[in-house]
Amino acid sequence: MENFTFFSPTYFVFGKGEENNTGALIKRFGGSRVLIHYGGGSVVRSGLLDRVKSSLEKEDITYVELGGVMPNPRSGLVYEGIKLCRRENVDFILAVGGGSTIDSAKAIAGGVPYDGDFWDHHTGTPIQAALPIGTVLTIASAGSEGSPNCVITKEEGMLKRGTKTDLFRPKFSILNPELTCTLPAYQTACGATDIMAHLLERYFTDTKDVEVTDRLIEGLLLTMVSETPKAIADPNDYQARANIMWAGMLAHNNVCGVGRNQDWGSHKLEHELSGLYDCAHGAGLAVVFPAWMTYNMNYDVQRFARLATNVFGCPMNEEHPEETAKAGIEAFRKFLVSIGMPITFEQLEAKEEDIEYLAHTCCYGNGGSGKVGGVIALDEEAVKAIYRLML
Amino acid sequence: MENFTFFSPTYFVFGKGEENNTGALIKRFGGSRVLIHYGGGSVVRSGLLDRVKSSLEKEDITYVELGGVMPNPRSGLVYEGIKLCRRENVDFILAVGGGSTIDSAKAIAGGVPYDGDFWDHHTGTPIQAALPIGTVLTIASAGSEGSPNCVITKEEGMLKRGTKTDLFRPKFSILNPELTCTLPAYQTACGATDIMAHLLERYFTDTKDVEVTDRLIEGLLLTMVSETPKAIADPNDYQARANIMWAGMLAHNNVCGVGRNQDWGSHKLEHELSGLYDCAHGAGLAVVFPAWMTYNMNYDVQRFARLATNVFGCPMNEEHPEETAKAGIEAFRKFLVSIGMPITFEQLEAKEEDIEYLAHTCCYGNGGSGKVGGVIALDEEAVKAIYRLML
Repeated sequence: MENFTFFSPTYFVFGKGEENNTGALIKRFGGSRVLIHYGGGSVVRSGLLDRVKSSLEKEDITYVELGGVMPNPRSGLVYEGIKLCRRENVDFILAVGGGSTIDSAKAIAGGVPYDGDFWDHHTGTPIQAALPIGTVLTIASAGSEGSPNCVITKEEGMLKRGTKTDLFRPKFSILNPELTCTLPAYQTACGATDIMAHLLERYFTDTKDVEVTDRLIEGLLLTMVSETPKAIADPNDYQARANIMWAGMLAHNNVCGVGRNQDWGSHKLEHELSGLYDCAHGAGLAVVFPAWMTYNMNYDVQRFARLATNVFGCPMNEEHPEETAKAGIEAFRKFLVSIGMPITFEQLEAKEEDIEYLAHTCCYGNGGSGKVGGVIALDEEAVKAIYRLML
Repeated sequence: MENFTFFSPTYFVFGKGEENNTGALIKRFGGSRVLIHYGGGSVVRSGLLDRVKSSLEKEDITYVELGGVMPNPRSGLVYEGIKLCRRENVDFILAVGGGSTIDSAKAIAGGVPYDGDFWDHHTGTPIQAALPIGTVLTIASAGSEGSPNCVITKEEGMLKRGTKTDLFRPKFSILNPELTCTLPAYQTACGATDIMAHLLERYFTDTKDVEVTDRLIEGLLLTMVSETPKAIADPNDYQARANIMWAGMLAHNNVCGVGRNQDWGSHKLEHELSGLYDCAHGAGLAVVFPAWMTYNMNYDVQRFARLATNVFGCPMNEEHPEETAKAGIEAFRKFLVSIGMPITFEQLEAKEEDIEYLAHTCCYGNGGSGKVGGVIALDEEAVKAIYRLML
């Protein structure tokens, strides 16, 4: 195990009806003038936004609103939010929504006290200060409710870049699984795939002797394998939604990723797909991950075989562990199909003739070094080969 | 899953040599006049205390010292610490040691800003303020480095009582597995048993559909089953020590216990044993837990069978799950024996003729209601029967 630090100071409030305590929580964490940040109309139509506003009014907290966050949140709205917060002397930002809304809120929070362009934070300038953030989560997926991460897309050139700082860990996050019961099956499955991908990016490591985090990851993957089909079959299965929601937070606050190298190559390959074809991130990951695994299983066949036995229940073939590893990948692919995820280029409406371009931008775009992946370093040819496995 | 809150704001610094950063961490968290609190001579003899002091001196942090914490920490030293902190205007308490030292430091931290007797905090008075605490952990066991809990024994009547508050969550905890490599095998095994007991108290629940926390607990138990024998066989196995140390924190900061009823009956039965015979807490738990499980397995035989299959690798007997449950308890008992733990009254030098007294104080001592256990409520007769299973 490598030396590490772990800091997850968010106050998590989990369960039915907890969004009605948003105002009290903002007060507890020192907020008095709030920006309520959200995405599309669903939080309005469902009445969630009204319930949240009522809870603020009950505590005499003043607020302004900024809606319109899109998936793959854009810098334009961030600039608008920063201006609004400064004009209104906002001292607390509340995100009501999923990962995109929370990330947009984080970028605004970092931009308000910063003299320069907030985009600097996405190109290497360390973040020195940020307004406090709270969240009311509406989809189990990105894990941004407990993570230090923030990914924003700059409209010019559609540059998608992440940054992170412990200042972006929310002061509180309200996780009410009921709020996720209205999600369509497809979005539920995309969220679940994203959660599993966060776990797998940490699982495929070259750090030796990390049994405790291996076991935590396997436990969370087993949870996803067991609970996701239940939430797909019955959207109102509260218990399944609850198990998925807590797993989603733990998959990305890094409690199960500390002290070990992590890969994140598959995420890079996927970013190119959602960038070019505007597919859902989770759907893209469903196509990428099994292909990435197939290409790379010989890098450490025992680890792939371990995943197969411990998560997908495949029998271990001691003499031919590569057979076990293959069976595990196949089981994962079948699982993805069973929850309605795509697994081929065609299903994403992605095109074979774009592979050259995709592989090149994946390796060299966004200032890339030519290599992709923290554990298994892929060059452009390898990335091309993996894309071809998705045909 | 029940509604819950989860708050674990401690900054964990994990790895080799990290105790040399103690001073910088105290500074980061606002400390300038420190009480260094510790136990016996081992932290002195090993040079750890000197390294910690040097790191404080490097940051120009002044300090006073108070050693002498004993296992089952006593109120007498807490009163002494409170006086010392007030006299010296201490603004930060640093515990260097294991659970007893950390708990003693927590009690002092709560006592300094409190006008009355700190013991009030152990008899129902809520804790309103506490000095900030940091820890340098030297044994993986109690989990106090990440928990809100504090257990103190009052000399008069040897009353052992716990309290908890999020104010007792340490600001930082330094976890260097190397510091645990000097522990004798017996203490290592006692610590491991304590960690497993913290997990099992949470595992045996009557809350339904808590797959995510079930899987986390099983993952941490699997880690303990795999890593403890390695640390016993080779005390200098850094990786085994590291896996155990992180598991020990996670076993008790409640990340795997949220949203579910927990039992804690076995801990109550054990407290009577260590109270009367002054045995190590972990050793007492090794004797109690398998007996408690044997007595209670029919309460929910499927759960005991699940433990047997998922943690101890027993084959599932679908027709007779009670056979699987029994095999799991037997496997746990064998595991405890293999790491050198006692499993009978005799090995603890406990006496059959004390059972009446033990069961009575267990149920009615410390203001007890006559029932023990949050999930399976045991009366005095049941407690007696369980003690008899340890003969």
